[in-house]
Order: sequence, then C-alpha cells, then structure tokens
Amino acid sequence: MTAIPPDEILGRIQKLQALLSASEPTIDVALVLDQVNQYYLSGTIQSAHLLVPAEGEATLLVRKVLERAQEESPIENIKPFSSLKNLSAELELVAGPRPWRIGIELDVLPAKTFSLYQKILGDSVEFVDISPTIAQLRSVKSSWELEQIRTSAQINQKLYEAMPEILSPELSTYELQSVLNCRACLFGHIGLVRMRGFNVDGLIGVVASGPTGAEPGHSAFPIGGLGPHPSIAHGGDFNKIHVHTPVIFDYLANQNGYHHDQTRMAVIGKLNAEAMKIFDGMQGLLRAVEARLKPGKAPSEIYEEVLALAEERGLAEGFMGQPGYKVPFIGHAIGLEVNETPVLAKKFDAPLVEGNVLAVEPKYTHPELGVIGLENTYAITEDGFENLGTASEEVVQVKP
Amino acid sequence: MTAIPPDEILGRIQKLQALLSASEPTIDVALVLDQVNQYYLSGTIQSAHLLVPAEGEATLLVRKVLERAQEESPIENIKPFSSLKNLSAELELVAGPRPWRIGIELDVLPAKTFSLYQKILGDSVEFVDISPTIAQLRSVKSSWELEQIRTSAQINQKLYEAMPEILSPELSTYELQSVLNCRACLFGHIGLVRMRGFNVDGLIGVVASGPTGAEPGHSAFPIGGLGPHPSIAHGGDFNKIHVHTPVIFDYLANQNGYHHDQTRMAVIGKLNAEAMKIFDGMQGLLRAVEARLKPGKAPSEIYEEVLALAEERGLAEGFMGQPGYKVPFIGHAIGLEVNETPVLAKKFDAPLVEGNVLAVEPKYTHPELGVIGLENTYAITEDGFENLGTASEEVVQVKP
Repeated sequence: MTAIPPDEILGRIQKLQALLSASEPTIDVALVLDQVNQYYLSGTIQSAHLLVPAEGEATLLVRKVLERAQEESPIENIKPFSSLKNLSAELELVAGPRPWRIGIELDVLPAKTFSLYQKILGDSVEFVDISPTIAQLRSVKSSWELEQIRTSAQINQKLYEAMPEILSPELSTYELQSVLNCRACLFGHIGLVRMRGFNVDGLIGVVASGPTGAEPGHSAFPIGGLGPHPSIAHGGDFNKIHVHTPVIFDYLANQNGYHHDQTRMAVIGKLNAEAMKIFDGMQGLLRAVEARLKPGKAPSEIYEEVLALAEERGLAEGFMGQPGYKVPFIGHAIGLEVNETPVLAKKFDAPLVEGNVLAVEPKYTHPELGVIGLENTYAITEDGFENLGTASEEVVQVKP
Repeated sequence: MTAIPPDEILGRIQKLQALLSASEPTIDVALVLDQVNQYYLSGTIQSAHLLVPAEGEATLLVRKVLERAQEESPIENIKPFSSLKNLSAELELVAGPRPWRIGIELDVLPAKTFSLYQKILGDSVEFVDISPTIAQLRSVKSSWELEQIRTSAQINQKLYEAMPEILSPELSTYELQSVLNCRACLFGHIGLVRMRGFNVDGLIGVVASGPTGAEPGHSAFPIGGLGPHPSIAHGGDFNKIHVHTPVIFDYLANQNGYHHDQTRMAVIGKLNAEAMKIFDGMQGLLRAVEARLKPGKAPSEIYEEVLALAEERGLAEGFMGQPGYKVPFIGHAIGLEVNETPVLAKKFDAPLVEGNVLAVEPKYTHPELGVIGLENTYAITEDGFENLGTASEEVVQVKP
C-alpha cells in the first residue's frame, strides 16, 4: 500500500496555512470534514475532524479508528474524539480564543450538518467556504502525485491491451463494461471512483456503442448512454455490440487514490469511412489541445480556440454532444477526485501552471454510430505537457 | 428495463401530498432535488427540479434530458427548465402566491446550494427539512416494491451458488470481492449501490477474512476490513485467503434501483470448532430477530432484546464489532438506498408496520478469525415477516 509520504502531508498543511494567513481577513482555522480533503491533508480516511490553524500545529480528532489514524498519518496531534460538545474547546486549543473565522467545506457539507456546527459553535464565529482554497492547493500536483497518476495509468494501459481478448459480439455494452471493471480491479484498481458534489454517481468506467450509446445523459459527462436501468440512466446497456460499430470505453483508473482518465475506441470488424473521419478529427483536436498545454495559457482560451477549430474543420455539430445536449467543457482537472479544478471551459481564465493535471477528452456524438473520441491525462510541465498514460491511441480492432 | 409503474408514482405523490397537508403548519410545496427521492416520486433520474404542492399537480422541471423524463415519468406537467431565475415563477404556478413554506432535503443538499436557493427565492419563504417525511413514505414498501427486492435477491442467490466455483486460495479477499462484483453485474446488477449521506462510499460488496478482515472500519458498517488502500480503508485487501479461515461476503444486489442485502460465509477447507460455534450463535440470533419481526414491535425493543440474548449466550464480546469499535445497530431498512429508516437500534421506538423492509445482520468480529455472521433482507407482513431472499444459510465449503 502506497501511503502518502509524511513530507507531502506536512508540506500540504504548511501551504494551506499560508493560504489561510493570506486570506483577507485571515481564516483562523480550517475545519476539514470532507473525507477526500482529510485524506489529502492527513493521509488517512477515518471518521474524524481535521483542524488546521493559520499558525501552529494541526490536530486530527478521531472518532473511529484512532489506531489506524495514528498509523497512517504523520500529524503529531491525533486525539480521540467522542462528542461534538468538545469541538469548541479543541478549536480554542488550536486557534486561540474567539472570535473565530472558520473555513468549512460548504460545497459538500449538507445544510443540516452545517447548521448543527453553527449551533454547536455558537456566537463569535464566522464561517467561510474553504473548499475553493483547498481545491486550488490540490490543483497543483507534486512530482510524487504525478507518479501516483502514472501508476494508475498502468491500469488503463492494461485495459487497452486486454480489450482484443475481451471484446466480442456475445457481449452487451453493459456486460463489456462490467468485465472491464473487474479486470481493472484485478489489475490493481481499488474499486472506487470519487466524484465531488451532489447527485453524482461514480462509475469506474462506461462503454457505449451505436444509437443507444449516443443517448444524451443527464449528467455532466460527454458520454451519456442509455444505461442498464432508468434508476441509473448512464453508460452501457443490455444491447449486444454490433460489428463495424464504434465502441468507446472511458475508464477512471485508481490504484492509490489518484485517478487517471483515459478513453479509447474499439471495433469488432472495421470502422466505416464516416467513423474513421470523425475519429481522425477528434485525434486532430487532441493534438490541437496538446499544442496549447503549457504554463501561462488559460483553460478558457484553449476551450474557445478548440471549439473554433472544431467549427472550422466541420466537426462542430456533434462535438461534445449533439446540439442541445452538449457539455460545456473539453477537459477537466483530475486527482483524488475526477472533477477537479481547473476545467477546460469558459470562465477558467487563470493561466495553467506547472503541476496542473488535465484529462482532455474531445468526443463526438453521432446519433447512429454512438460516441467517437479519445482522452488522455496530461501534466503541465515547465514548458509544455507530459502525457501521463502510455496506451496507444490506435483503435482496437478484433475480427468478427 | 423495469420502469416504475405509473400508478406507483402517482400514489406516492398523493401520499406525499397528504403528509404535506397534515404538517403543522402545512408545507405548501416540496422542492425535491435529491436524485433518489426524485426517482422515487417521478420514475426518472434527470437533471431536474421536482415540485410537489400540498394540493394540485406536481411539476417536473427538466434541465436535461427532457425527452427522457417525458418517456419515463407519468407526471403530466414536465417542462424544460433552463435557469434558476424561473424557479420562483414556477413555484407560484404550483403553490400559489407567497408566503411559502417549502420542504427541501436538508440532509443531503450541500450548504452552499441551499444558500443559493434561499437567495434566489428571497423573502416570505420558510424552509423545512422534507427528508424525514419522504423517508417515512419510502419506509413502507408496496407489493410492487417488494417484488423488485425479490428480483434483486436473485443476484445474491446466484452469487451464493457461484461461490464454490470462484473461491480459491489463489485469490486475495480484494480479488474475490472484484470477481464477485463482476459476476453480480453479469447476473443483472446495475453496477451502482446508493448510500445516503456525506462521506459514504457505496461498494457493491465486501469480502473479509482472517485478522485483516477483522480490522475495525471508520464507517458505520459492521464489517470493517483493511481495504485495498488507505484512501478507501474498507473491505477486502491483498492478502491471500487462507485455508480453514472463515470468509464473509456481504453483497448489496441491485437489479432495478432496489437493493437486497445478504451476507453469507464460505471457507476453503473447514471452519474450526470456535468459528462454527460463533456461526451457530449468529444464526441463533438471526432466528431470535425473526421471532420478533412483526407489525407493532418496536425496532429499539428488538435491538435491546437481541443484545441481551447475545450477552446471555456468551456472544457479547465481538457482537457487532470488538469492544470500542461496535456499530450501534443490528439491522437497517433498505430500498432505493441501503441506509434507510427505521434502524434496529436505540431510539427507533415507532412500531414496525407492514411493508417495512429490514436487512438484519448479526455479526461477530473475532480478532484472528475475522468477521462471522449472516444477513437476510425481510419484509414485515400482516402478521410476521417474509424472507425476501432465497439463498441457503449453509456455509459454502470448497476443497483446499
């Protein structure tokens, strides 16, 4: 098991503290409750409260399991915690006397839970949303983090290699998706994909093909798909895969908490000329994004420029979805969660910096053929980008 | 695909309306945003707002995908919805002029999102938590719903039957868990398990065995387990399964949105006398719960009585976890989500009624052997209970 190295954790806490101090006015303490942020800042996922003051030592208050937190986290102050009644006293120990300006994760903390914390902590407390600050911190990956994503990428490499053996007209897209999920786990996937937010379902991967694969989805994913059932309405379905019909497989590999996102195409038989033309078009747009991936370039610029290129090259109609059902982005940051910041989309005007990691996914929805496209996960380097994955982009072809 | 029949949906809306009217003071309209509650009350999961007034017709406002919502839901008023700015006008159409008392799901709606709705809807609006009301409605299952759970139970039956062929000392508990997940999907599982709440990960199933399987977990599950990685810290791990060591497999089957929860034991070789004694003890406690499952009996009474029985029978030490790490329940309601209400725990004093569905899971954690126990999902009937599953309770034995 690859635990997060102590230096990583302590460095992250220091950087968060610098951001807390630099806030106007200062945020006295971050009360970190979200388990992914807790893992990022402590190295352990337990039932716990993480208190990070602007100055001084962080404290991890653990309801369950104390021993495991102590074993996994380099934080020195790890204490048992049995009642929320003690929270105020613990905050005073790390942040000094009131009044307090407390950073808390308002993007994921349920309204009822937030209101409980407001009540428990009482007067002389101002709450501010700490999630954007932690997201900003998380958006710049260390070299150790890039290595984790490269490791996860090996699962996607192996899935790509296994596809010729697995793909068969006996399977439905949902069955193929299920078999790929299992293979991913046997290749080291930890079986969980983390998406941030409300009403989102984390699937390890989706497979789509043909008209039902082209169905628009309710979610923010470029691949919709009929799904196996109305209660999920996303991804593969129970229709058998047809010969000569493009099969898209979009997988979120996660071997160590860090995700690698990759999309490839496969076909039983051969893609027809129209499908090949679209595939070549999407590959061309992927190269166009790559040419723009470097520090200083704004995600919103890349988005607008690539949209204009798609238009210019006659690929606009189905690009990122059919008209009326398009998703408003062409890529997204990824790390401990799949939907991190920045996004290759409008309004993301802050320039890219070294250490950003972006999954770039030009995709085209064709009502009959399904979805056609590619996706790679890239790190922004000092002067350009590195593709963190190793799988060939060639369409996997198997004999009918 | 088993869509929810129109009569079910319309009946549920009517019942919710009766509860809104009966509230003191009346709740004018429920603004349903959680996708599971939306699915329960509309039959579709889209990016949408569901408005259910205390009187009059419900309206489903769909951002994406309108056609799919229209196809899947029997609600007559289904309208496109592109901006939150129109929400106030739409509420006025269904609930009449302000002031409004609006029911909203404060248990899952993020604090920031709630605050956005407060801002958008402005003055003369009082918000109340509608989740407990919808949970109460959902806690009584119709005969159609029971049939869905019986259907999902067939996946668990098939997993039980497949175990002798799958279990092998070549596998780690995590690998066995992954293979079972895949089999479940090939048997019809839709690949998703829904848990309600913050910081919860929905796993299709967990496998645990031996000392690492006995590790206490941070979550509310009776089976903890080392897990494959610190970022998940739950379920199977990469240690190979040992002969003569109990293997527990706890699976959440979901073929149609409705979950069936089942736990069984397996072993390569034979359970030793100590393990058999614990297994017999847990089976005895399961029978003791069954004898108490009937309308009129309070979940809290069942809990207390079975805890006393465990004590009496010398099974208290590891029952529902080792001392200091016990979970405070012996069963939970289940349906569209895994963690529904009521729970077989303290404070659940409202008597059981016909149509409640409970997963009952007496389990014993032994530091060396791992977790030993059983779980069945039951419906409360007119005068007792029905076991909704069909799998034998016998320990699956395979040759070393």
